[in-house]
Amino acid sequence: MKIKLNRQALIGKLNHVTKALPVKTTLSILTGIKFLTTEQGVSLTGSDSDITIHTSLPLKILTEKEEAVTLIEIEEPGGIVIPGKYFFEIIKKLEAQTIEIHTFDDNDILIRGDKGEYTLKGLPVENYPQIELSNVLHHFTLPTAELKTIVNQTIFSVAVNESRPALTGINFKYGEGTLACTATDSFRLSQRTIGFADETLSDFNVTIPGRSLSELGKTIDLNDPHTVISITNNQILFENADVSFQSRLLEGVYPDVAAFIPTSFEIKVRVSHRELFSAVDRVSLMAREDRANVAKISILPEENHIIMKSNASEIGKIEEVVKIQEQTGSKLSMACSSLFLLDALKAIEYSGGSVTFGFNGDMKPFVILDDQDVANLQLIVPVRLEE
Amino acid sequence: MKIKLNRQALIGKLNHVTKALPVKTTLSILTGIKFLTTEQGVSLTGSDSDITIHTSLPLKILTEKEEAVTLIEIEEPGGIVIPGKYFFEIIKKLEAQTIEIHTFDDNDILIRGDKGEYTLKGLPVENYPQIELSNVLHHFTLPTAELKTIVNQTIFSVAVNESRPALTGINFKYGEGTLACTATDSFRLSQRTIGFADETLSDFNVTIPGRSLSELGKTIDLNDPHTVISITNNQILFENADVSFQSRLLEGVYPDVAAFIPTSFEIKVRVSHRELFSAVDRVSLMAREDRANVAKISILPEENHIIMKSNASEIGKIEEVVKIQEQTGSKLSMACSSLFLLDALKAIEYSGGSVTFGFNGDMKPFVILDDQDVANLQLIVPVRLEE
Repeated sequence: MKIKLNRQALIGKLNHVTKALPVKTTLSILTGIKFLTTEQGVSLTGSDSDITIHTSLPLKILTEKEEAVTLIEIEEPGGIVIPGKYFFEIIKKLEAQTIEIHTFDDNDILIRGDKGEYTLKGLPVENYPQIELSNVLHHFTLPTAELKTIVNQTIFSVAVNESRPALTGINFKYGEGTLACTATDSFRLSQRTIGFADETLSDFNVTIPGRSLSELGKTIDLNDPHTVISITNNQILFENADVSFQSRLLEGVYPDVAAFIPTSFEIKVRVSHRELFSAVDRVSLMAREDRANVAKISILPEENHIIMKSNASEIGKIEEVVKIQEQTGSKLSMACSSLFLLDALKAIEYSGGSVTFGFNGDMKPFVILDDQDVANLQLIVPVRLEE
Repeated sequence: MKIKLNRQALIGKLNHVTKALPVKTTLSILTGIKFLTTEQGVSLTGSDSDITIHTSLPLKILTEKEEAVTLIEIEEPGGIVIPGKYFFEIIKKLEAQTIEIHTFDDNDILIRGDKGEYTLKGLPVENYPQIELSNVLHHFTLPTAELKTIVNQTIFSVAVNESRPALTGINFKYGEGTLACTATDSFRLSQRTIGFADETLSDFNVTIPGRSLSELGKTIDLNDPHTVISITNNQILFENADVSFQSRLLEGVYPDVAAFIPTSFEIKVRVSHRELFSAVDRVSLMAREDRANVAKISILPEENHIIMKSNASEIGKIEEVVKIQEQTGSKLSMACSSLFLLDALKAIEYSGGSVTFGFNGDMKPFVILDDQDVANLQLIVPVRLEE
């Protein structure tokens, strides 16, 4: 292989694929980037075997003024697996508009800028694992912004504990024209449900590793309004702009959360999102010290406000008051993790609007609904209130 | 104690004193901030017993338009030691222009903003350790910018290894009208020497912990052109703007480095600082892998350039060429830590100027001089070159 490339353009692509490179791996070839010349230009692949990110650099691009700019000159086609971390750092630090890459001997790679020479030891592309998708079962398109919102509103509820592997992912369940995306660690639950009509699409129920989706969130390009999603029996592929992002699916049955989410409430309380957020933010200051991060919450319809209390035995205590905008039902006292509460409120877009609590008693799971976005549901399981 | 304070003004001061709070300590009162009302306003002190930062908040300040703005209203003078971390976080997160602080019962502290109440458990000021300076031996003033430069150009050479405690600090040696500030870990040395005539000042030789000076660098206010320095037998005090920064001095004799620093050179080589820096930056990419971070340097007067090489057996190799601007003496090949080289070049202000190497053989310490700033000397001990 012998090629010349535009350095800046290459850096842009390496920014994507290097995200998939494993921090450490037993399969040493995966520390490399699969670098392959094609008819269209150069194809780049990085993978840690869970996540695979693929992108390509075209031979030419058109500027705003419709002028063609050459990005790649292929003198001699070929492919090589290049040590990813070093390759990226060298390319970033090189002083050159155009860099030259060619392979020689057995997989050695020579990189040349305006000055200085870099030799890296590569590996043959043939040895790189095959990660292409086979027999796609489901194929559909989501607005890229919606996909990003799904991730942001649920990912923090994914279980850290691996004892139930399925809970370490976000469940995507499609049926009856709705797509429900759920994350839960069994102490709290976050769900985004969107109406979504696609006759061609059959029902599915897959769980995507949380780590994959958080990486996807960083890689995905909002400039491309649509993301094409393909699902096989054990893989999912997100295609967006000129980047394709592939992840394995989690095995194991995801719990039927619908049964777990209350739909009617004895007590409903509406408060300002902003007021509640800043109050919880302060209450969690001390709750933090306490292992359970517990905040005591008292709904007081007579006084027309909510009182939140937390205290760390050694340090002191905090008391916050939040005005009630509207309430149905009686008074209530309960306790929950103030950090779960804070996470849930962070997942509600700041719009100066209001949120509504739905309670069914002091030990029943309660929900927080975004009055500006019905798709967004946050549920928290209370903790026992020690008086 | 019962007072009202301007929140923003208090935050500004807490930003300083909290820098001195210990991460963990056996002396629990040091996790607190000494908060004391005075005739002039409020005095604040934070300390980890090595470093003590003191500042004060005045009752009033004048705006640009010479209007007096009240910052503090003292209803009831007094003092208390407040849990530092929590106090600062509460004050930062409170929504209020003016906050109220008063003490009650035995050292409980009530903090009130516009809404919400915070109770912190304090400790009596009497219990706070006395850290005031006694019998000052040396007293002088340095330009604040110069003090900051001294720290930046030397601190990275301070020894991490504690086996020789004196080397974990920066040595300030005054005599014959010059102040020499030196840091060395015995593998490299950084020194800044400034002419400094002060008849009233007697010779001194003190070593200040590196950690103290790096904190000082962050605290010191460049808006105040002068910093007043006072030295006792075991403490040093830096007074700048309305912040005073005190540190203990290191015990033990600092080595006589003068004997160690060559003043004449068999070989002198001048190169562009910018070119050398970016070349070393790239060379160190791979040198890093190798435990010793070794870069091989060949000075080639005939070819009129320097060649720098590094290689990491498993990954590959780098070769960089830097043009020689001027040279006296023969050719030379030697090796040194590329990271030491990089640190030394970072300590030279980027001015588009040149640096000069001074060598006396491949195994003798060599120096790097900033041609734009004679005060700045960087010395590195070569490593044996394995062929």
